[in-house]
Amino acid sequence: MEKRELLYEGKAKQLFETTEPDVLWVTYKNQATAGNGAKKEMIAGKGQLNNQITSLLFEKLKEKGIPSHFIKQLSETDQAIEKVAMFDLEVVVRNVAAGSFSKRLGVEEGIDLPFPVLEFYLKDDDLNDPIINDDHVLALELATTEEINELKEKTLKINDALIDLFKQVNIRLVDFKLEFGKTKEGTIVLADEISPDTCRLWDLNTNDRLDKDIFRQDLGDIIPLYQEVLDRLTQL
Amino acid sequence: MEKRELLYEGKAKQLFETTEPDVLWVTYKNQATAGNGAKKEMIAGKGQLNNQITSLLFEKLKEKGIPSHFIKQLSETDQAIEKVAMFDLEVVVRNVAAGSFSKRLGVEEGIDLPFPVLEFYLKDDDLNDPIINDDHVLALELATTEEINELKEKTLKINDALIDLFKQVNIRLVDFKLEFGKTKEGTIVLADEISPDTCRLWDLNTNDRLDKDIFRQDLGDIIPLYQEVLDRLTQL
Ligand SMILES: Nc1ncnc2c1ncn2[C@@H]1O[C@H](COP(=O)(O)OP(=O)(O)O)[C@@H](O)[C@H]1O
Ligand SMILES: Nc1ncnc2c1ncn2[C@@H]1O[C@H](COP(=O)(O)OP(=O)(O)O)[C@@H](O)[C@H]1O
Ligand SMILES: [Mg+2]
Ligand SMILES: [Mg+2]
Repeated sequence: MEKRELLYEGKAKQLFETTEPDVLWVTYKNQATAGNGAKKEMIAGKGQLNNQITSLLFEKLKEKGIPSHFIKQLSETDQAIEKVAMFDLEVVVRNVAAGSFSKRLGVEEGIDLPFPVLEFYLKDDDLNDPIINDDHVLALELATTEEINELKEKTLKINDALIDLFKQVNIRLVDFKLEFGKTKEGTIVLADEISPDTCRLWDLNTNDRLDKDIFRQDLGDIIPLYQEVLDRLTQL
Repeated sequence: MEKRELLYEGKAKQLFETTEPDVLWVTYKNQATAGNGAKKEMIAGKGQLNNQITSLLFEKLKEKGIPSHFIKQLSETDQAIEKVAMFDLEVVVRNVAAGSFSKRLGVEEGIDLPFPVLEFYLKDDDLNDPIINDDHVLALELATTEEINELKEKTLKINDALIDLFKQVNIRLVDFKLEFGKTKEGTIVLADEISPDTCRLWDLNTNDRLDKDIFRQDLGDIIPLYQEVLDRLTQL
């Protein structure tokens, strides 16, 4: 398999066509963004860390019976993935109140939620990824009722699996963002990435942040933290 | 029945206790606000128009088998209502894209929605009444799953009834906000008000605005418009 033309360049990744029609080549970039691109920086080493963390987590999820677009890691910064038709939405899971949830709804950061709270966001940078409800998903034709149910069900299973994995390495999975796509056979699979860019990860004992919030809030260098997450997960 | 001490003063109404334990006395005020109170003005005549429009609509809904907290109109500006335990949420119904829906989701104003889109908002002025989904309603314990279903079901019935009433007087019911409460017997009933302050009402032929948007956008005097709405509804 060889890499062909660039298909799409996002904020954190490049997607390339390959010689295989249903396989894409992803290169994880060193660019870090926050506030929908308002803050932007190149951070050497971020791409390879997120690629390795995502590859490891997709492997572990597969072992737990949860399929994804992930095919295999190609290099430190690169992955082969199955090309899917993405849903234009992001699914956020919250186990603990934090970030925009706390701010918008007036719930103190760090409070355990009574159950995993799911949220949909419209994937649209121009609109700043607004939060939407199920009726919006249907009215905007982002997914059908059956697909919404399947997305929620899959998301809760992934949450259980990830909570368990992170707990084993002494990390509290506070919240995270998922994206899903549809294979050409019509199967809904987990796609995109799972990394400290897309999760809030707190040390289980100290509550120290091990994620992008440190970049968002200008609290220091994220590379040692992302490395710490990778090192811990490698022990699994 | 006599009026007793002031129980609550909101942006548009005053609620008083009465000599009857389960009956409140509401006085509709002339104050108009927009942007969660950022814009505020006294507009002579608004209170009596909204009281008369709300009273008329609650009467008509009752005739159609839809109960509310409304007991009877007491004067031009006053109503007797049943005291209920309010749900701390607002239910918005959208038949046509407009306002924050259009802005947030990038849908052109005036587009008919494929079905009535329901939205919940947390009733909290300090938080600027944020939009919430069903999981938020449950996590914040604003309502149970059964209550959510009942609120949605009742809202859709009210929407059907109101669309029908307004259509008869050549008005397009674009969107509106409802509030619900629970009687001491535990029955969920429609409460608060239904007026041009809480609905978007467009003339069916001209699309002329007959509602608070004219105030929000500084487009002129609302009194003739609210009067027009009342005059038309009086023909029902
Ligand atoms: N398997 C896949 N097939 C097609 N597109 C994908 C797949 N996995 C992820 N994508 C899309 O590729 C892009 C990944 O790049 P990223 O830099 O994360 O973008 P963004 O800046 O939009 O977050 C996202 O838009 C994501 O939806
Ligand atoms: N039947 C009722 N029993 C108790 N409270 C009610 C009832 N109907 C309306 N309310 C509450 O009374 C207040 C009405 O005043 P309003 O000026 O509209 O307030 P706001 O400024 O909060 O919109 C609202 O908070 C509403 O929830
Ligand atoms: Mg992304
Ligand atoms: Mg009100």
